[in-house]
Amino acid sequence: MLFIYNSLPNQPFLLTFTPNFNNEIMSYNLLKGKRGIVFGALNEKSIAWKVAERAVEEGAAITLSNTPVAVRMGTVNALSEKLHCEVIPADATNVEDLENVFKRSMEILGGKIDFVLHAIGMSPNVRKHRTYDDLDYKMLDTTLDISAVSFHKMIQSAKKLDAINDYGSIVALSYVAAQRTFYGYNDMADAKALLESIARSFGYIYGREHHVRINTISQSPTMTTAGAGVKGMDKLFDFANRMSPLGNASADECADYCIVMFSDLTRKVTMQNLFHDGGFSNVGMSLRAMATYEKGLDEYKDENGNIIYG
Amino acid sequence: MLFIYNSLPNQPFLLTFTPNFNNEIMSYNLLKGKRGIVFGALNEKSIAWKVAERAVEEGAAITLSNTPVAVRMGTVNALSEKLHCEVIPADATNVEDLENVFKRSMEILGGKIDFVLHAIGMSPNVRKHRTYDDLDYKMLDTTLDISAVSFHKMIQSAKKLDAINDYGSIVALSYVAAQRTFYGYNDMADAKALLESIARSFGYIYGREHHVRINTISQSPTMTTAGAGVKGMDKLFDFANRMSPLGNASADECADYCIVMFSDLTRKVTMQNLFHDGGFSNVGMSLRAMATYEKGLDEYKDENGNIIYG
Amino acid sequence: MLFIYNSLPNQPFLLTFTPNFNNEIMSYNLLKGKRGIVFGALNEKSIAWKVAERAVEEGAAITLSNTPVAVRMGTVNALSEKLHCEVIPADATNVEDLENVFKRSMEILGGKIDFVLHAIGMSPNVRKHRTYDDLDYKMLDTTLDISAVSFHKMIQSAKKLDAINDYGSIVALSYVAAQRTFYGYNDMADAKALLESIARSFGYIYGREHHVRINTISQSPTMTTAGAGVKGMDKLFDFANRMSPLGNASADECADYCIVMFSDLTRKVTMQNLFHDGGFSNVGMSLRAMATYEKGLDEYKDENGNIIYG
Amino acid sequence: MLFIYNSLPNQPFLLTFTPNFNNEIMSYNLLKGKRGIVFGALNEKSIAWKVAERAVEEGAAITLSNTPVAVRMGTVNALSEKLHCEVIPADATNVEDLENVFKRSMEILGGKIDFVLHAIGMSPNVRKHRTYDDLDYKMLDTTLDISAVSFHKMIQSAKKLDAINDYGSIVALSYVAAQRTFYGYNDMADAKALLESIARSFGYIYGREHHVRINTISQSPTMTTAGAGVKGMDKLFDFANRMSPLGNASADECADYCIVMFSDLTRKVTMQNLFHDGGFSNVGMSLRAMATYEKGLDEYKDENGNIIYG
Repeated sequence: MLFIYNSLPNQPFLLTFTPNFNNEIMSYNLLKGKRGIVFGALNEKSIAWKVAERAVEEGAAITLSNTPVAVRMGTVNALSEKLHCEVIPADATNVEDLENVFKRSMEILGGKIDFVLHAIGMSPNVRKHRTYDDLDYKMLDTTLDISAVSFHKMIQSAKKLDAINDYGSIVALSYVAAQRTFYGYNDMADAKALLESIARSFGYIYGREHHVRINTISQSPTMTTAGAGVKGMDKLFDFANRMSPLGNASADECADYCIVMFSDLTRKVTMQNLFHDGGFSNVGMSLRAMATYEKGLDEYKDENGNIIYG
Repeated sequence: MLFIYNSLPNQPFLLTFTPNFNNEIMSYNLLKGKRGIVFGALNEKSIAWKVAERAVEEGAAITLSNTPVAVRMGTVNALSEKLHCEVIPADATNVEDLENVFKRSMEILGGKIDFVLHAIGMSPNVRKHRTYDDLDYKMLDTTLDISAVSFHKMIQSAKKLDAINDYGSIVALSYVAAQRTFYGYNDMADAKALLESIARSFGYIYGREHHVRINTISQSPTMTTAGAGVKGMDKLFDFANRMSPLGNASADECADYCIVMFSDLTRKVTMQNLFHDGGFSNVGMSLRAMATYEKGLDEYKDENGNIIYG
Repeated sequence: MLFIYNSLPNQPFLLTFTPNFNNEIMSYNLLKGKRGIVFGALNEKSIAWKVAERAVEEGAAITLSNTPVAVRMGTVNALSEKLHCEVIPADATNVEDLENVFKRSMEILGGKIDFVLHAIGMSPNVRKHRTYDDLDYKMLDTTLDISAVSFHKMIQSAKKLDAINDYGSIVALSYVAAQRTFYGYNDMADAKALLESIARSFGYIYGREHHVRINTISQSPTMTTAGAGVKGMDKLFDFANRMSPLGNASADECADYCIVMFSDLTRKVTMQNLFHDGGFSNVGMSLRAMATYEKGLDEYKDENGNIIYG
Repeated sequence: MLFIYNSLPNQPFLLTFTPNFNNEIMSYNLLKGKRGIVFGALNEKSIAWKVAERAVEEGAAITLSNTPVAVRMGTVNALSEKLHCEVIPADATNVEDLENVFKRSMEILGGKIDFVLHAIGMSPNVRKHRTYDDLDYKMLDTTLDISAVSFHKMIQSAKKLDAINDYGSIVALSYVAAQRTFYGYNDMADAKALLESIARSFGYIYGREHHVRINTISQSPTMTTAGAGVKGMDKLFDFANRMSPLGNASADECADYCIVMFSDLTRKVTMQNLFHDGGFSNVGMSLRAMATYEKGLDEYKDENGNIIYG
């Protein structure tokens, strides 16, 4: 195994690895020499956390960002120490904060940015158990601002600062609720639809001017701290798992897919919403999910086995 | 109530009705003066049967067509008598037969055709219980030919004969399996995807030349004779019903929607696949369906109520 | 022709008509006995204006609503007089105003509402010529609030007041920019994506509880006062027209389609985005559009007719 | 640079490379140790050709297959020599031939297969200049059989032989004409829709049983020998290029994307159609394409610059 000291200025301890075929540390050097920013890592369950780890394994130098509160409450500092990368606190709804993240990251990493992950979302309506037909509109504004408009602010700030290299890659995490309604997902569904639209709209502009691509990855339900907070998440997780021929995609697997989208091998993919979900999005009904459903049906059946419609 | 003798030649006894607000016979005269062909009525459960009835109620003069076998086995002759319309037997995979249907229909109805319903589909692989990973390819050809290519043959025959009036409307019945996989639906899913593509491809050509519109209606699972033959249909029917906020759409309701698509009020809708399914296509998980699913999950739970993933 | 005095209380002069086969006033009585609210009629070019006219022709009793400014500047009072219906001014971003529209409408029309049209949209960023990579975020909030969140406020207000009859129908107007990026359409694209998501999310809830269906109609570019204000609209209009096999759908045709969606014939269609665009949405390239495009290409060709890529 | 002799049996001369940052031979070892079959390489312009080259660069051992005629006419033997891999002639519509390809490939490569590329398509109707409203149905059968059903036959043969490793990956090349109509693309559009449906249908089954994933990549128009034969291809190529913010994706870039889909980094992506098109699929109208279109419009304008609609 080769250890190579990364020569990027201000990051003397960052390491990159050659491929390790003993599977201890796996790397293809897909992001060798690239600089990235990862927004939204809270703790070791976070998809953003896994992306940060994998990005460094693949040779990238990165910075991390999250809200000041999340930085205090979570364990992102531990990640920072492990990966030898800096944390730049920022409120992702605040343009000045975002500009600071890009400016500081360019200083720290010694050049323009090659990739950005947006893994940010939160709904006060969900937290306060407001149902979708009883939304508080101030809270809805907050949901949209944090979960979707922040993505526009991030990209616009970067573009105005000319902070992203040509052929750079920007990814945000989404969910299939942007296309289909899941009870209980509430105004987050609308936020995800808005997020995906922003990816298209800005992907057009940033692509034609700087070849920067912008995509969303629509991930399986994932048992992160954020995911576990969704009402009925364990049942939905089970349903999605049985519906998906490959099972739900894990946070680790999502990180792998993000790496691929940041690499030079996907330079012509843009404005897309990419389902990373074991097939869920294109399954109407699987045999495994129906087997469970049928058990639930049993008590609605008469003595002849016919379903009694209630 | 006004009874108006229809003045179309050769159809002296066909009646049309003014709106009846006592709900005995409901009509808006949406198809008054129009001529149509309805393919695929087998018996009184058939969607095509309902469409034929509603078309006549709405003022249209029609002919019916089905395979010689279906004409003998089914009760289409009873429908023919009830609606005072002729049945023209035809194998929908045979171009000559199809040409004959259009020629005869124009003679009988006294002019060019305004609307056509294609409600035809059959899979020998499904009938013979061949699974999707053990298809017989001769049977697959038959599935595609009967369920999809027949639609192209029908339209091409009509266009070559100049048998359809400008601003005419052609509809085929489809199912959401064209977009998402339902276990057991087998090669019919592929046939429906092909069918919907033919609607787009020919919709472009027939539209630009004669303003004829071509659409597919993607209908809820329906307890027709054909539908009831699909494996596990009763469970799927129940699942779809609980997933759909409005419940499954019935054959009668589908007939209403077909009428709308044949009427002059939808003249700019073409090349579309229109979901008529109580909302099913855009629901990821409903509370009602999950309640049933959860019951089925119960036996996978430990004493603390946590799901045991198997 | 029969003139029938409408028996709804407080609307003594409203007339409905039987079908007129001389084409002077065409009616199928599709909305006979129904009560509706039409939001967004500004002047006789407005789609909402045409919908109001057609709804009354089809037998409905309606009220109109628009902003106080629009009521003063536009000619909606003329429409009101013509149709013998009241105008209730309201800011569609203000929940109290919206509640007032539903309360007053129920009083005026003598019962719960059967259908609602939302034809509201405006972007200050577009008006102020802010490009999409230089958005003003206060203006973006306004764009989203007026053009999309207003739809949620409208429905939530109605539901809380129990103002809509079971099996009622709600429609909002959208545009294909919700799916694909059109240069210059700017943040309105994101607003339309949000609008369509709200239709799905609320369609699920209102459907399961009251069988109320909620859909969006994605209309061709239309030369309304709003549409004509979009940058390069005339060229886009021409392109869409040549791409669409049936040509662009007019405001009158859109009104017909809205009527159909308000009628009892489409009771199982919900949570859908329905393209009413002459086929545009499903055309990748038409012969007619390419013929024009090719002329534009000519000056990029060398003497041998080969395209010179610049 | 490290040269490592590949230890797969029967392939003594195959080389894999470590990443080369001087860009002479670029490799991430993404497919190290994997075995693959590439169907459809004709000559050095073919996407399949590029995929074969890149797969070997990335560490895979492969076999090639094409029809006997293509093997004679094209230059696939030169590729075979360059990559030190065998060519197994096969008619992809013939199940026995396909079985032979899998059996021989397992023998040659020394084990089960990890990835398969299907880059096969042909329409006799297009070749014989039959328009879509004058299709020859025998030719249509051939189009569907070669371009779509062959994909099913390939997968079913592989599955029956248990020829593909768990977590294997199968990719077929598609085109956006499966979703939207492009004049002149003719019955190939229907074939591509069928192809994408087969990917979904079989992806469900092969995924749940063996974690094998099946996807289609929807590629930009590409100036391959097949592509160049499509009517008006040069104009369509130009239009797509100007519509796409990143420009058309090249055959080389498509090969990179295929590699990614074969690698272990995309193990939970299945049943998807992945657009690799520089953004084309999600652009409604770009500024660059409209600039060309507008020039074509000029001659339809009157002296005041208004468009004269013809």
